[in-house]
Amino acid sequence: MDPNPNASISTSNAPYRDLPVASSLLFSAKAKKGLTFEQIGKAIDKDEVWVAALFYGQAKATDDELRSLSKVLGFGEESLIGDLGSHWYPNRGIGPIPPTDPVIYRLFEGVLVYGHALKAVIHEKFGDGIMSMIDCKVHVEKKPDPKGDRVLLTFDGKFLPYAKW
Amino acid sequence: MDPNPNASISTSNAPYRDLPVASSLLFSAKAKKGLTFEQIGKAIDKDEVWVAALFYGQAKATDDELRSLSKVLGFGEESLIGDLGSHWYPNRGIGPIPPTDPVIYRLFEGVLVYGHALKAVIHEKFGDGIMSMIDCKVHVEKKPDPKGDRVLLTFDGKFLPYAKW
Amino acid sequence: MDPNPNASISTSNAPYRDLPVASSLLFSAKAKKGLTFEQIGKAIDKDEVWVAALFYGQAKATDDELRSLSKVLGFGEESLIGDLGSHWYPNRGIGPIPPTDPVIYRLFEGVLVYGHALKAVIHEKFGDGIMSMIDCKVHVEKKPDPKGDRVLLTFDGKFLPYAKW
Amino acid sequence: MDPNPNASISTSNAPYRDLPVASSLLFSAKAKKGLTFEQIGKAIDKDEVWVAALFYGQAKATDDELRSLSKVLGFGEESLIGDLGSHWYPNRGIGPIPPTDPVIYRLFEGVLVYGHALKAVIHEKFGDGIMSMIDCKVHVEKKPDPKGDRVLLTFDGKFLPYAKW
Amino acid sequence: MDPNPNASISTSNAPYRDLPVASSLLFSAKAKKGLTFEQIGKAIDKDEVWVAALFYGQAKATDDELRSLSKVLGFGEESLIGDLGSHWYPNRGIGPIPPTDPVIYRLFEGVLVYGHALKAVIHEKFGDGIMSMIDCKVHVEKKPDPKGDRVLLTFDGKFLPYAKW
Amino acid sequence: MDPNPNASISTSNAPYRDLPVASSLLFSAKAKKGLTFEQIGKAIDKDEVWVAALFYGQAKATDDELRSLSKVLGFGEESLIGDLGSHWYPNRGIGPIPPTDPVIYRLFEGVLVYGHALKAVIHEKFGDGIMSMIDCKVHVEKKPDPKGDRVLLTFDGKFLPYAKW
Amino acid sequence: MDPNPNASISTSNAPYRDLPVASSLLFSAKAKKGLTFEQIGKAIDKDEVWVAALFYGQAKATDDELRSLSKVLGFGEESLIGDLGSHWYPNRGIGPIPPTDPVIYRLFEGVLVYGHALKAVIHEKFGDGIMSMIDCKVHVEKKPDPKGDRVLLTFDGKFLPYAKW
Amino acid sequence: MDPNPNASISTSNAPYRDLPVASSLLFSAKAKKGLTFEQIGKAIDKDEVWVAALFYGQAKATDDELRSLSKVLGFGEESLIGDLGSHWYPNRGIGPIPPTDPVIYRLFEGVLVYGHALKAVIHEKFGDGIMSMIDCKVHVEKKPDPKGDRVLLTFDGKFLPYAKW
Amino acid sequence: MDPNPNASISTSNAPYRDLPVASSLLFSAKAKKGLTFEQIGKAIDKDEVWVAALFYGQAKATDDELRSLSKVLGFGEESLIGDLGSHWYPNRGIGPIPPTDPVIYRLFEGVLVYGHALKAVIHEKFGDGIMSMIDCKVHVEKKPDPKGDRVLLTFDGKFLPYAKW
Amino acid sequence: MDPNPNASISTSNAPYRDLPVASSLLFSAKAKKGLTFEQIGKAIDKDEVWVAALFYGQAKATDDELRSLSKVLGFGEESLIGDLGSHWYPNRGIGPIPPTDPVIYRLFEGVLVYGHALKAVIHEKFGDGIMSMIDCKVHVEKKPDPKGDRVLLTFDGKFLPYAKW
Repeated sequence: MDPNPNASISTSNAPYRDLPVASSLLFSAKAKKGLTFEQIGKAIDKDEVWVAALFYGQAKATDDELRSLSKVLGFGEESLIGDLGSHWYPNRGIGPIPPTDPVIYRLFEGVLVYGHALKAVIHEKFGDGIMSMIDCKVHVEKKPDPKGDRVLLTFDGKFLPYAKW
Repeated sequence: MDPNPNASISTSNAPYRDLPVASSLLFSAKAKKGLTFEQIGKAIDKDEVWVAALFYGQAKATDDELRSLSKVLGFGEESLIGDLGSHWYPNRGIGPIPPTDPVIYRLFEGVLVYGHALKAVIHEKFGDGIMSMIDCKVHVEKKPDPKGDRVLLTFDGKFLPYAKW
Repeated sequence: MDPNPNASISTSNAPYRDLPVASSLLFSAKAKKGLTFEQIGKAIDKDEVWVAALFYGQAKATDDELRSLSKVLGFGEESLIGDLGSHWYPNRGIGPIPPTDPVIYRLFEGVLVYGHALKAVIHEKFGDGIMSMIDCKVHVEKKPDPKGDRVLLTFDGKFLPYAKW
Repeated sequence: MDPNPNASISTSNAPYRDLPVASSLLFSAKAKKGLTFEQIGKAIDKDEVWVAALFYGQAKATDDELRSLSKVLGFGEESLIGDLGSHWYPNRGIGPIPPTDPVIYRLFEGVLVYGHALKAVIHEKFGDGIMSMIDCKVHVEKKPDPKGDRVLLTFDGKFLPYAKW
Repeated sequence: MDPNPNASISTSNAPYRDLPVASSLLFSAKAKKGLTFEQIGKAIDKDEVWVAALFYGQAKATDDELRSLSKVLGFGEESLIGDLGSHWYPNRGIGPIPPTDPVIYRLFEGVLVYGHALKAVIHEKFGDGIMSMIDCKVHVEKKPDPKGDRVLLTFDGKFLPYAKW
Repeated sequence: MDPNPNASISTSNAPYRDLPVASSLLFSAKAKKGLTFEQIGKAIDKDEVWVAALFYGQAKATDDELRSLSKVLGFGEESLIGDLGSHWYPNRGIGPIPPTDPVIYRLFEGVLVYGHALKAVIHEKFGDGIMSMIDCKVHVEKKPDPKGDRVLLTFDGKFLPYAKW
Repeated sequence: MDPNPNASISTSNAPYRDLPVASSLLFSAKAKKGLTFEQIGKAIDKDEVWVAALFYGQAKATDDELRSLSKVLGFGEESLIGDLGSHWYPNRGIGPIPPTDPVIYRLFEGVLVYGHALKAVIHEKFGDGIMSMIDCKVHVEKKPDPKGDRVLLTFDGKFLPYAKW
Repeated sequence: MDPNPNASISTSNAPYRDLPVASSLLFSAKAKKGLTFEQIGKAIDKDEVWVAALFYGQAKATDDELRSLSKVLGFGEESLIGDLGSHWYPNRGIGPIPPTDPVIYRLFEGVLVYGHALKAVIHEKFGDGIMSMIDCKVHVEKKPDPKGDRVLLTFDGKFLPYAKW
Repeated sequence: MDPNPNASISTSNAPYRDLPVASSLLFSAKAKKGLTFEQIGKAIDKDEVWVAALFYGQAKATDDELRSLSKVLGFGEESLIGDLGSHWYPNRGIGPIPPTDPVIYRLFEGVLVYGHALKAVIHEKFGDGIMSMIDCKVHVEKKPDPKGDRVLLTFDGKFLPYAKW
Repeated sequence: MDPNPNASISTSNAPYRDLPVASSLLFSAKAKKGLTFEQIGKAIDKDEVWVAALFYGQAKATDDELRSLSKVLGFGEESLIGDLGSHWYPNRGIGPIPPTDPVIYRLFEGVLVYGHALKAVIHEKFGDGIMSMIDCKVHVEKKPDPKGDRVLLTFDGKFLPYAKW
């Protein structure tokens, strides 16, 4: 992505208008610098998906991570910590439900169509419990394919058995 | 899973009451035989997740696949083809929305929390388009871990670029 | 489609459980005879989409059309007219909203993504008014393409200008 | 459409208040110049429906396309690329659901009334799969008719067969 | 409408499955006799819209009115009074909301589009209050017109001023 | 209604905050001049209900009609055409659904209670089709009555038969 | 209300199909005996509103109260206690929300229109807290009035101050 | 309530942000003067509940009543009539639905739990019709009780019989 | 609770009609035996809340636990294992949402009113993460109090910190 | 928590944008001072959960409590009483419903999964009635555990028996 000093983020529409002000500042700085999430992730030693989640206000960074991020983006670190520091916690979950954007809807459709099948297979392999979405790492990989490249999306989450008492 | 000749499927509750009658018959035969989706999948040369999707009426089998399935389950093949043969097409999507079951809700929560981040990373890696949920293969793997086993859930879907005209 | 004397329609799931009883009988007779909507349409001189709409209880046939249909399907005409004759009118609209089935959802997505654009172009070409969905003919055509066949879906609807008074 | 130097776009109401700021600027420039989507489309070598979708923030243009568009509208290209350049991706889907505007509602009604019929015919002609709304071209044509002109609305979308695995 | 001794009412779909059993019996008897609501209305000295509302379980008849109705339909009066007699009161309001059937949706669209305008005109003509839907008479008239017949739908409702206290 | 030079329209609440800015200007000018919709309607040769619909952004006027309206309201015509001229089209439908205001709710209740009855009577009188809400004229009349004045609300809409193809 | 040995309760529609079976039996016995809630209330020493709530499965009676009720209705007490005895607890709340029936909607409209005003007045008179709907007695009284009888509906509920801790 | 010259009303949250600007001004003036609704009601000869409804934009005052109100609150009467004068009509109904505030939810719960019982008793006492929420007076009274004071909430509404025609 | 050989469970209403058939059998056996959840819990060495959850189909028992339960209830163990054995997994989550029953609504109200406060306090005490509802034990205790007994409801759930990657 | 003079609260996103302005000021002062709810609670002699509820506008403080709070936060007491003094009452209930944030959703899931079980156990222990959420004290405690610390969440609410009348 080329740097674009004129790049701006319109906050009059979803999802930006529902995010903390810091989100728009982060997206704007990233666009002006022409950086990808992958590049930022490498610079601060985090996965690109986690970095993107942080930009959307869906993950929490330590003050040290915010400092590293400030450096990469050429951002005042005081200001970033003022916005997203230890007093701030994510308000997770970005609408609408069901999603209207086709990229996100396809993930939702995966839940609609394969949700019960996945539940049944998880129960058979692990017993009564769930796959944690808290202790879970999410990755996106590009898998070249002559018939058209493929997206490899992985959720790696801890199995949590149901308590009995 | 041990065979249980008394195993029955109650069709008065979700999701069974919203599925074709064939679904209950399939689940019941599987329970009586004590087979797992993995075993059935191996026997008919399909992934266990796809087999589970078929049981929930969310995938379409050929007549040959239905014949193989009938053999594994000790089922009359005429009857299975009568129910799910070439005249039948899945009515995909099983509710409720949002899901109330915690296993399925966690997948939905993944969309709520990481949906926009995944969208942004897919756009950066592939451009304007989507990950197909039609040309998509879904896998569940058990990843042993001393701190607690992990569920490795993979979506392997074709990237589809947006047409311009 | 091959005739299948064992073909049955499970009415415990959507959309069949929400349709008139006659719908299941029609679908079942069609499957047993191995007829396509195209073949039935040709036999009764109607488009296949209209015939399918009639099967789903979304269109109204005359008694003569019901008689022709009875002949094609090997159905008692008295019974069909008893169910769908002149005293019967469609209760149009089949849920859920939004659709969960991916085929129908894609049409809905077309409305979500291109609805305002279509409205704007219709206004520019025709002025203030709408495209009628009542005086509208709908067609599906298969367009072979080396990169993958294409579906050509056409709505041919009368433009209705808004009254002023 | 006559040029109107006083033309303005009120952004206090739907859909403009939910669109990126660039959308209002585009609509306003178009109105002041008195251009139709068809004229703009011809000037930048794109279909009018795609151009309208771009105006509503529902399609993504390349920087070159934005430059052409800037010329046609007498717009600063720096500014347009700053708003909708390579760092920007559409957030597709414009509400409300169900639509309240009669023009858009009629399209939605088409899904409600003919959705299942279209699904059935697509399955019969193509097998298990969907009509893509991603690799899909949408056209609006005016078909003169002595009883009242007709709108010819076409969706030309690739058929995507369901994967099996 | 011609009498049809084979006419039947399918109660597996809306709105019949949500109505009292008596409704299906009334509709079925009417169809077998080939009577219109207008004819029934004349025979029992009521407007056809009110009669239709009664059939749909949306109005309450006296025992005498039920007796007259029984005679017209060739129905046992004991049975009709047993179902809809003095112990029975309508449970008014038939869904879905918003309506999916195009005939009923158009009325709903009238509320969406003209509701505020009607409210403003009623306030100007009458002051602060409402048009009663309880003390309200509803009529449908056919108005022949060479460009296409018109439906004249009239609500004649008492104005009720808001109390002050 | 007496002219009131201090009259103002609060745009912080429904429905004004959801309407184009021009709506508030129109309502404010009307209140300052002390004009009724009936008086404005007479001055521009339109029905008062249509005029009110225009004020609420639910109808489209020609430039000539806007010029007449400007004169009646003592409004700059350039400005009104700049806002609602040929580049502007109504975004029809004003919420909430269901309506909460009692005046509008009563109309909605009419649909809930009498919708199916009206559908049935329309079908009997006209056959399979709908009453158009596009080619429809709506009137409100005050009918004096010693027991309390009555509101006579009329919808005069074209019947549109369903196409067959 | 006159006794009617043929009186029956149709359980195919709301609210009866959502109530315990005992509800229909109670309503049916009441109708056959021609008793009012007031008469039943007097016979078992309870208010008529509470008795009606019990019939709708919205209140809980002791075994003694069920015995008294059985006597009044000529019902087997074993059976009534078998249905609604000490093992049974009400599942309170009967839909739909918002109510569609005009009688119940008017109460709901009271909440929509006067809810905030009532809250403000309760706070002024009592401080921070609520009016209990658990320790609350509800009465309906007929207040004759020459201009039309009036319904006097009273909620007499304990004020509960908010805890602080 | 003591006068508080610093009292302010935050209009960034419900319900104030959904009310006309005049509402905040009224609430603010009332708080600064330390007046209760009861005191204001006595001063302008209206019930406190009606006054509160007026403050929330749910009732309509005459110009004379606005003048009295202005005097009590030390408000410019021109300004109040400019805001809420003869050109203004309430937009009744304040959300959300269902209510989330516990005070208002309890009233809503009364409808959920006792709605059908009240409907049945009203029908028995009055016949087929409703209790008007338009010609209805609402009162709140404090009823001292040694076990805890009670709220006596009364709705005194005219019974309206259903029209027949 | 006294044994009642006539005790029956009506499955025509919520929540029983949405539960597996086994649930009704369990509730019925419990009522006939006059056992409390506490007594059953002691007999099978589980907490009463967990036992109740099992009855409502919201928890999973081992075959051994089902055998113990069968003994306590005088139930055929084959049949119980046939229904709820190793092939069965709970479909968790019982509606409606929001709850209408006042007991359950109060818990929901706790989430509405105190949810954000609890989130903030959990974050302060534990950092970024959640309280698990999977590894969570729930207890109800009766705390006698002269002013009225109190319910002590405890959720004892593991804190799960958010993964970073 | 360390004091951070740059700490700011973004009010463009939930829940802050839906709270009174005073909430943001309170959160901001707390962050700048680096105080926890526990510390503030001790200083003003209240539980930390109640203090957090007050910050979110979900509890009502006396003027004295506001004065204490002002001192702890270094806030002008006039201003705080001006915002949240005796004229202010909480508008309780913070959305969305269902919650999207995972911390709050887990509490909601507790209601979905254990709601009916809790209801049943409460009924068995206390009879027909509810656990009050008004006279209820809520606590969060950290319970160290070698396998991972646990959250001990307690609701201590008065049991309220249902009135009979």
